[in-house]
Parts: sequence; structure tokens; C-alpha cells
Amino acid sequence: MNPDEEQLYRDFEKHGLIPLWTEREGLMPMRPEPRAVPHIWHWDDLYPLAERAGDLIPVGRGGERRAISVSNPGLPGLPYATPTLWAAIQYLGPNEVAPDHRHSQNAFRFVLEGEGVWTVVDGDPIAMRRGDLLLTPGWRFHGHHNPHPAPMAWLDGLDIPFVQATDTGFFEFGADGVIDRSTPRISRSERLWAHPGLRPVSAQQDTPNSPLAAYRWEHTDAALTAQLELAAEGHGGVTEPGHAAVRFTNPTTGADALTTIRTEMHRIAAGHRTAPVRETGSSVWQVFEGTGTVRLDGDRTDLARGDLIAVPSWCEMSLRADTDLDLFRFGDAPIFERLNLARKEFS
Amino acid sequence: MNPDEEQLYRDFEKHGLIPLWTEREGLMPMRPEPRAVPHIWHWDDLYPLAERAGDLIPVGRGGERRAISVSNPGLPGLPYATPTLWAAIQYLGPNEVAPDHRHSQNAFRFVLEGEGVWTVVDGDPIAMRRGDLLLTPGWRFHGHHNPHPAPMAWLDGLDIPFVQATDTGFFEFGADGVIDRSTPRISRSERLWAHPGLRPVSAQQDTPNSPLAAYRWEHTDAALTAQLELAAEGHGGVTEPGHAAVRFTNPTTGADALTTIRTEMHRIAAGHRTAPVRETGSSVWQVFEGTGTVRLDGDRTDLARGDLIAVPSWCEMSLRADTDLDLFRFGDAPIFERLNLARKEFS
Amino acid sequence: MNPDEEQLYRDFEKHGLIPLWTEREGLMPMRPEPRAVPHIWHWDDLYPLAERAGDLIPVGRGGERRAISVSNPGLPGLPYATPTLWAAIQYLGPNEVAPDHRHSQNAFRFVLEGEGVWTVVDGDPIAMRRGDLLLTPGWRFHGHHNPHPAPMAWLDGLDIPFVQATDTGFFEFGADGVIDRSTPRISRSERLWAHPGLRPVSAQQDTPNSPLAAYRWEHTDAALTAQLELAAEGHGGVTEPGHAAVRFTNPTTGADALTTIRTEMHRIAAGHRTAPVRETGSSVWQVFEGTGTVRLDGDRTDLARGDLIAVPSWCEMSLRADTDLDLFRFGDAPIFERLNLARKEFS
Amino acid sequence: MNPDEEQLYRDFEKHGLIPLWTEREGLMPMRPEPRAVPHIWHWDDLYPLAERAGDLIPVGRGGERRAISVSNPGLPGLPYATPTLWAAIQYLGPNEVAPDHRHSQNAFRFVLEGEGVWTVVDGDPIAMRRGDLLLTPGWRFHGHHNPHPAPMAWLDGLDIPFVQATDTGFFEFGADGVIDRSTPRISRSERLWAHPGLRPVSAQQDTPNSPLAAYRWEHTDAALTAQLELAAEGHGGVTEPGHAAVRFTNPTTGADALTTIRTEMHRIAAGHRTAPVRETGSSVWQVFEGTGTVRLDGDRTDLARGDLIAVPSWCEMSLRADTDLDLFRFGDAPIFERLNLARKEFS
Repeated sequence: MNPDEEQLYRDFEKHGLIPLWTEREGLMPMRPEPRAVPHIWHWDDLYPLAERAGDLIPVGRGGERRAISVSNPGLPGLPYATPTLWAAIQYLGPNEVAPDHRHSQNAFRFVLEGEGVWTVVDGDPIAMRRGDLLLTPGWRFHGHHNPHPAPMAWLDGLDIPFVQATDTGFFEFGADGVIDRSTPRISRSERLWAHPGLRPVSAQQDTPNSPLAAYRWEHTDAALTAQLELAAEGHGGVTEPGHAAVRFTNPTTGADALTTIRTEMHRIAAGHRTAPVRETGSSVWQVFEGTGTVRLDGDRTDLARGDLIAVPSWCEMSLRADTDLDLFRFGDAPIFERLNLARKEFS
Repeated sequence: MNPDEEQLYRDFEKHGLIPLWTEREGLMPMRPEPRAVPHIWHWDDLYPLAERAGDLIPVGRGGERRAISVSNPGLPGLPYATPTLWAAIQYLGPNEVAPDHRHSQNAFRFVLEGEGVWTVVDGDPIAMRRGDLLLTPGWRFHGHHNPHPAPMAWLDGLDIPFVQATDTGFFEFGADGVIDRSTPRISRSERLWAHPGLRPVSAQQDTPNSPLAAYRWEHTDAALTAQLELAAEGHGGVTEPGHAAVRFTNPTTGADALTTIRTEMHRIAAGHRTAPVRETGSSVWQVFEGTGTVRLDGDRTDLARGDLIAVPSWCEMSLRADTDLDLFRFGDAPIFERLNLARKEFS
Repeated sequence: MNPDEEQLYRDFEKHGLIPLWTEREGLMPMRPEPRAVPHIWHWDDLYPLAERAGDLIPVGRGGERRAISVSNPGLPGLPYATPTLWAAIQYLGPNEVAPDHRHSQNAFRFVLEGEGVWTVVDGDPIAMRRGDLLLTPGWRFHGHHNPHPAPMAWLDGLDIPFVQATDTGFFEFGADGVIDRSTPRISRSERLWAHPGLRPVSAQQDTPNSPLAAYRWEHTDAALTAQLELAAEGHGGVTEPGHAAVRFTNPTTGADALTTIRTEMHRIAAGHRTAPVRETGSSVWQVFEGTGTVRLDGDRTDLARGDLIAVPSWCEMSLRADTDLDLFRFGDAPIFERLNLARKEFS
Repeated sequence: MNPDEEQLYRDFEKHGLIPLWTEREGLMPMRPEPRAVPHIWHWDDLYPLAERAGDLIPVGRGGERRAISVSNPGLPGLPYATPTLWAAIQYLGPNEVAPDHRHSQNAFRFVLEGEGVWTVVDGDPIAMRRGDLLLTPGWRFHGHHNPHPAPMAWLDGLDIPFVQATDTGFFEFGADGVIDRSTPRISRSERLWAHPGLRPVSAQQDTPNSPLAAYRWEHTDAALTAQLELAAEGHGGVTEPGHAAVRFTNPTTGADALTTIRTEMHRIAAGHRTAPVRETGSSVWQVFEGTGTVRLDGDRTDLARGDLIAVPSWCEMSLRADTDLDLFRFGDAPIFERLNLARKEFS
């Protein structure tokens, strides 16, 4: 580099400027080159740590939640599963209460095991049971309480990294406890909305997020079972041979249950594998039941109940089921589908 | 009128012209002045006639269906309940088959009583039972068969008058019988779609009409019951005090189940009346259960099970329930909501 | 027919019922069988009659407009060009005023020749000049005034028959004259909206009908010219070889300018013919300039300036241009596209 | 912290976990706390540096463009104006060519001064002139060439940081030069689409990004002028008193011209100031003409032609015009409006 050029680059820096021509390759790669890496966290590691936190760390105002998030090794120091998604194990001991608050970030809980906690969303107490998906769309007040003698842990998923990266989040404290300590078996939201194809006539306006707060395992399981049975009878409905899948949707629009987070349940029949696929945007999967293996950009790992898998953008992924294998999945696809940035490629 | 004017009007006629100034009031009234009138047909009259038709008239190719449609007294000679809606009682005797065909017109069946017939829609056999709503969206092949020793009758609703008035209908014969004579308790369509808030991942594209072919009474009843219970507990959800209502929707979009026909179920708790309301567009109601009265532009009529009520555009309507009163309703509102022609006014 | 059957049919009639099996063929034909017929009205007949009406018939409150509508020979006695569309020649003499009113019906004016009238829509005076399309969306107050010494005539198009058939119309009288007698060259609506691809930031909400009240000939002509030039240079854009066409749209949505009426301008280069096509729904065409022929279900007719062509549903139509041939077209397609009832077939 | 807790935190780290309770405040602040800061770059600094780069740095394959991006002081080392937006000055000397390529990132050029370069988008040469906005939606091939003896510089805007943060970008090299070196005054895209309210009938499908590649200053200027004139005459249309603004839109949908980037032109009449406002999401403004001041979170800065202003999320902004003041603005609002994350607050 000649002295004039050196001076030019120094002057760029002095004026807060950066030339594109030295940065283009990194800034605009030929295909996504995520810093986030494919990674697996094992439930057998997570749960005991959550238990120990339950003994040592009080839950309450300020910290707000006893949630322990996974941190992608490619994003060191950041509590991010992927560049857009936050995934954590949350633990609530006997008689504990996680206080009421609300935030712009969309959230859900998915229950791997146990039961006995109620999440109270805008005053509506929602029982949490194994296999259920519970929603807390942005800006709804919510707290959790555990009126039982046994602790409970579950998966929390949020769009915290996306909201953080885009500076679009607001947060507000609510009541110190939860508003309603009753413990109904199903929520008011379900009583109004969990009827297939039915919509209250009083609900004239579509809502961006789902008004249905709980998607129960009995329905999810039945839907997956039916898809595989229909395939066995020679009819369509499965995603690919041996692979059933349902998406959780907003009944007012038929779109994803949350504006920023896609949520799905997948079932792969024993002995089947899914076609390797790459997609823009990232996902986190959790093994709900069964065993098998996942192949991520060519590397194979065994899977057991509760394991969490981070799949970065454009990572080639394929699953193989040893037993019947159920997995919950959440991802950021709704963002990119709306923006014309979604791509998908089968290998 | 002077001779020049007389000559002018004759010349208009000669050239196929009609002046607006002599017609404006009738063509563009201050508010809707339907030729159709409010009218009630009693099930007690209809059913015996359908039975007699069952004895005398064969069902089969050509006539296609043993359906007897109501004819609005304001539209004499036309088999129209209202200017846009067709409503009929269809009757199928033991071991009879109504042959396969398809048409542009959207259709549904609503079952007031009985069971035992299967409607087969694009090869998917759909059991018909009391309280169920069964869809046949436009251009799907469908036939009905009754494998049982008892006859069955139900309400057919279609957009025949609308399609006729706009010359948009096509019709095609299918198989002489029905394609699949199996008699499953629930259809394949339900196995894929009748799970609250769940959508098969394989169903990427939204469809204009609902992919769910049957809305079962057990779900409709539960939804109505829940709305009234929630109201009793002090929560929202009902349409007005004592009046629960659900709309049947397309789960891929959250919109009406059929593009041209709104379908709803209403329950009015004993002792309540609905607020008098006028709406553009017309509706047909059928009493499903219970007794009460309807007031149509001020005239009151007693209602009993099965009675059919035609409500023309801008007719003021109110219902009063003596016992708990369940009513099925269908109407043409989705057409006008899409076209900016919908209006509603509470008195 | 045996006596029992005869009695049955009498009883049907007595109870206001009509059997489907005797009506099915007419009610649900294999393809549209419109009562409306293809027909052509010649401007050379229409204009002199409008002039005579100008001499004999005053314009004013009650009749509201000196408009003479075409009446399809297949719909005798009805002032309907097709089952959904109304088309008329409106005539306003020197210094005349057509008083202010509003109605649910959507309306437009298309100017074949002349100028000098202002239509005032919700207080915005809009000059009318040759080749312009002027909109009066439903429920906007509007009147016309002619401050000049020469009379003016133009084409009025409305959805009167559709609104009449569906009983969805309201009408209201406004001021006895027009609100604003100023005579600006362009309207306020154009000053806000007639800038290609630009939208006022203050206009946050989309509107069902276009906020742009006038589409000027200079723009329409330029767009058609450009399409044919691009084709000559080897690029896309024309509808088919030698056939340029533009649709008038609502800039807030990109959809048709009016919810119920599609409006388009077509130019066929001398010597070209359009591919024969059938479509559900009906259209009216007006020759704006040039000569040629139209073939409607096989029958050929010569066309001259101002001629009006009614094209019923599913009528096969093709145009041939002797000279360059410009035609304005309006139709009801937006209704059926929204309802999944649109079909189109090239022969 | 007791030894058990210390061990717990060490074990979190060992397993790639981070507790929420120590991070919650930073992760989920009460309102957006962007790392990006309000900042202004002066054109008088930028342009001479671009000129020097023109002398020293060749343009060509690899670096692709002689573009120098601003780097927000709150995001040190990153070539980002805000967390989602990239803004740069691009400089092309006489007879230079920036080679053809395409990428997922949406891009535009806005011309502060000069002319003489053609950007060729998917083979369509588009002249660049003062005040014009030129679009390069994602995945369209594009290169630039300068056939004139004078250099030219302009503002480039892209969603590079957003696409980078979400790992959704693809890049592909095209021809080494540009495909078409012709120099038409207007592009083919404009010949098809730059007619107010008109849409080619051949363009049946809506497109996510605008098919119109150039928005010319003459139209933008006329639209802004008209808004202020209408206000002076007592009519609506301006955004607030003394403040005219237009948004560049996609004529097939009426929505923003690019899926991820809002583009607008603002004019503030001499002596007026805009109401202080905060919004989620970030913007970059460029002074096009005139002088005035900007107040960003209370700090006031004088503005001159070409100055670039970065406005982070939730920064309170107000403008004051000394002379008539025209500003171009681009921002990320379309992303957040689609995701239910948009908020706006007037002080």
C-alpha cells in the first residue's frame, strides 16, 4: 500500500467510515456463513443444573425468572441459542411464584416433562402439562406459580436476540405475584378458542398473535398419529414418508401462532430419516420422546429425550429415528417469509 | 307529455335504451327494498312432504338429488330462499345413492336430526350426524349414500341464486354412484384438520375454502356452552348478554369456511332476546333445538324445531328464547364484506 | 304422472316449495347460460337521442341525472347492460347542474369526446376531458356542473344491477347544486395521488376504493404506447402480440380501482387480432378510437367510435383492429376473483 | 457468593449456559437501549474522501464497488449506519464500470447531485439523476457504468446489517461488465410502470418488491409541492403543518417499495419544525437541499446539503427548517410493522 492509500484509510477511520471493498466478502458472503454453530445441549446436563439453581437462587422481582439459557458456542458470552432465538430451561420449585411482567418479546413454554405449574397470562391461569405448548405473545402480562409440592421445569423460547439486535423491546413490571391463583384444568382462552375451525362471533378482528394460549398434547399427538395412519392407508398429509408434522397456528389468520416464531411438532417413525435440507434462518429442536440421531452439516450425534439442537442458517440437517421420535421445533422462519428472504434447498 | 317527448321515449325503446330519470327511485332506493320477504317455513310441513317424495320420486342421474327447496313468496316461481341463497330439505331413503357430481356453487349440509348417510367429497366419506355442518366447496366431486335401513333428511344450503344471477356456474357429472362406500366415523379431512390451532406442515398453501369438511356438533356445542359459562363467571366471549355464537371458519385463513356463504351456530339462553339488528345481505336461519319467537320487521312468529327463517336484506330481526334456543344460520355476508358493501345497524 | 305425484307437486306449491329435480338443468347448467346476450349499441344512435333528451328533459332533483342506459335485449325492460353492470350515456347541457347525491353503488365516468364539465366528488371539482376515467366510489357525494356554452356527453358505468340483485344499496340526497363551482384543471385528489409510485405519508390506511379520482388520458395513452414500443424492441409488457392493455388501480393496494368494477384501456395495433377468450362474469367495452371488428360467439360486427359492446359471461370474444383500435373496458371480474368463481379459457 | 453458587456458575459456563437473572436488565431493558448512537456525517467530509478513493482505488471484481460506508460510533469497527441499515457514498469515475452481481440484500441508490451513470438492473439500463431514487431489489443482477467524462457519487442504502445479523444473504457474481451499455433517458421499468394508478394487464401477479426501478425527482418534487399548496388552500394531505412527505411504494401492492426498507422524501417549509417523535427501529436521513437543524435526544446540530443523520431506535428526533428543507429518509419500519413490533410516540 502506498503512502497516499495509507493516508486515505487513516482518514476513513478518522471520519467514521469503512470501505466496502475490503469488507465485501465477509459482509456479503456467497451463502450464509453464520457465526452460530450447530450444537447440542443434553437435558441430562441441563436438568441437574436447574435443580441446583432451584436450591441456591431465589426467584423474584429483578431477575424475574429462574431461567438458564443455552449459549451458542459460536456466539460466546451471549445467551443466544441462535442469532435470533433464546432457549432456556426454566425451573420453579414448590410454592414458588415468578412475578408478573410483560415485554415486547414473544414467548412460549414447551413442557418436556412434569406438570403442576400455572402460567397466568393477562389474568388467565393456564395449566402446564407434558407435551403442551403455552403462548405468551408480546406485551401480555404473565407470571407463573407452582402450588404443588413438586418442582417443575420446562423449555422457554423467546425472540430476545432478534428484538435485541433490532432495538425493538419494551419491558414493564406487573404485580409482585400473579393475578389469579386459581388452578383450572383448562384456560379461558381454550374454552373460547380450542374448538377446531370455530371462531367466536364476538371476535371480529384478527389478531397478529394467536388468541389461543395453550395447544394441548392430546391434540398434537392425535394429529401426528392421524397423519401417519393416513399415509399407511395410502393417503396424503405427511411431510415426507415416515415424517408427520404439525404447525401451531393463530386461528384468526391461519398463520404462525406468533409473529416472529414458528412452532411445530414433528414425529419421525422408527427407521425413517428425513431428507437433508438447508433453510435460511435458524431453528432450535427439542427431543420430546424417543431416540435417534441428527446429522448437522455432516456430523452425526445421538439424541435422547430433552436434548436441544441449535440449527444455524443454511446448516444441512437430517434426522433419523431409531424408535419413533417426537421433536418440538421452533424457528424464525415467519420473519423471513414475510420479507422475501426465505430460501430452502433439499440436498 | 308532449308529442316530442312521446317520440323520444319511443325512440329510446326502439334502440334498446331506458332513461334513468323515470327509474331512479326503484333502481336506487334510499335503503334496500328487497322483493324477497321475511318468511318462515315449518319443518312440520316440510318433513312429511320430503317423506312422500321419498316414496314417489326416485333419486338419480339428471335430477341428481331429492332436494326440495323453499321459495321466497316475494320471488314467486323461483326456488330461492333469498336473492342469493338456496335452502332445501334433502331426503335419502334406505340404500339409496345420490350420484357423484360437481359444480361451481358452494354447498353445505346441516343436520337437524337423524344420521346414517355418508356424503363422499372428492373420495372422502363423511358421516352425517345430528348437529354437524358438512361442507362441499365449489368444484369438488360429491355424492351421498345411505347404507342404513332408515331414511335421513337434512338441510342443504347453496349459493345457487348468486351464481345464477352472475352467470358464474359450471356443472359436471361424476361417477354414477359414489366413489368410496366405506363408512368411517370421521373423515380423512377431519383426521388432518380437526385439531384446534394445528395445521399440517405439508399444507403450505392457503385455500379459498375450508379444507375441513365436517364441523361436529360436539365441538360446536362445547364452544357455545363455554361462552355462556364464561359470561356467567364474568368474562367476555358472548356476542351479547345471553347470546353465544360461533362462526365456522377456514383454518388456513381464519375467514369464513366458504367464500360466498357465512355459516354460524347461535345459542340464546332461555329468557333472553337479541338486540334488533339490520344488515345488508340476507340470511337463512334454522331452529336446531328449543322454542322461542322471532320478530321480523315488527311481526312476531313462534318458532319450533326445524323451522326455517328467511331474513332479507335490511330486515330488522330479533330473537327471543323461551327455552334455551339453538339456531343454525347461513348468509351471504362474506361477499359484501369483501366488496365494501356491508352495513349493519342496531336499532 | 300418477295422482299421488300430482298431489305432491300441488302440496309443494301450497307450502312454498319447489323440487330441485325438475329445475336442476336450468338452475345449474353445465356452463354459464346467461339470459343476457352479446349486443352492440352504436354511438351514432345514442348521441342524437341524448341531444334530444337535452332539449326536452330537464335535469334535476328526483330523476337526478340525464342518463340513458342501454338495456340488454336478453333482459327486456331492465336498464342493464349485463346482469351486473349498468352503462349509460349522460348528457349535460350548457350551464346545467346535476345535483349532489351519494349512493352505495360504485360509479365511474369515461369520456369519449368533448370536455367542459366538472364532476365534484366530496367537494373536490374534477375536470372531465376526452379519454379520462373519473371515479365516484360508493357513498361519496357527487354532482356535476357544466359552466360552458357547449353541451357534453360521456359514458357512465355503475354496478347498479349487482347492488340491486343483492339488495345492498343506499341512497342519499345532498346539496341541490354542487358544493364547489371552481374549475381547476386538475383535482385535489390528483395533486395528492397522481404521482407514479408515490403515496402521501399522511395516508396511513389503505382504502377499499381508489383515492385517486381521475386517470388522465395523457398517462393512459403513454402507457399503451410504451407497451407496444417495448414489444417492437423485443421486450415484454404487452398482453399478447399487438395488444397493449392497462388496468386502472387503487394506489393504496394495487388492486382494481373500484371494489366491484374492473376498468381497463386496451389498444390493438392495426392488423392484429386478440386471441378468442371466454371468462366468467360480464364486461362492457366502448370503442374509443379507430375501427375494427368484434367477434362474439362467432358473430362478427364492425366497430366504430363510441360503440358499446356487452359481453355476457362465457361468451367467446375476439377483436380485430383495422386501424389502431383503442377500447375502454369495464367488467365485474373483481367480484368473482375474490370469491373463487373466476374462470378464463382461451379457445 | 457462597462456594456452592460459585461452583454453579462455573458449571453453567462449562456446559454453555448463561443464567437469565444476571442478564435480564441488559437483555430486556424497559425501553430500547441501542448501542448505536445518534450521529451525523457531513457530506463535505465524505465527498472529498470518495474523490481521493476514486484516484487511488480501482473499482472491479472482488471488492465490487467503490463504496465507503458510514460506521456508527456506537458500533465500532462495523460498517453499519444503524443495527439494520448500511449507508455509503459510492463513487464512479469517468468511463468506469462496477461489475454485474446480485445478492439477497435489498438496495437502493439516492442521488444527491450529479448525473451521468446508468445502473443496469437485470439488463434494464436506468439513468441516475439528481433527486432520483433507484431500486435494486434482492437477487436482481446489477452493475453500474459511467460513460461520461465526469465522475459521479451517490448514496447507497442496503439492509446488509439486518441480513448479516439474520444470516439470510446470498451473493452471486454476474458478467464482468454490465449487460447493456445503452444510455436511455428512462428505463424500460419506468416505461411499463411509471404511470400513476396504471398497471399493465400482463402483470397479473403482485411482486414483494416494486417492479418500478426509478422514482424520478420531478414526480417527487411535484408531490411535495402539491401537499404544501393544498395545505395553504386549507386542505389535508401534509403529515403535519409545514411538513410534506411521500413514501416510495410498490405499485402492485401499495406497500413499501422494498420489503425491508422504507424510503421517503420529506419537505419542511422554512420556519417550521416537526413534532418530536420516537419510533422503534432505525432510520438514516440525508439532507437533499436547504439548511436547518436536527435535534436528537435533545442535542441540536446544524444541517447542510448531503449530511447523513443516523437515528437509532427510540431516539427522540425533531427537525427545524431555516430555508425550505428537503430530506430523503430510509428506515427499517416495514420489518417491524409486519411483526407487531412497531411503536411510535409523540412527545
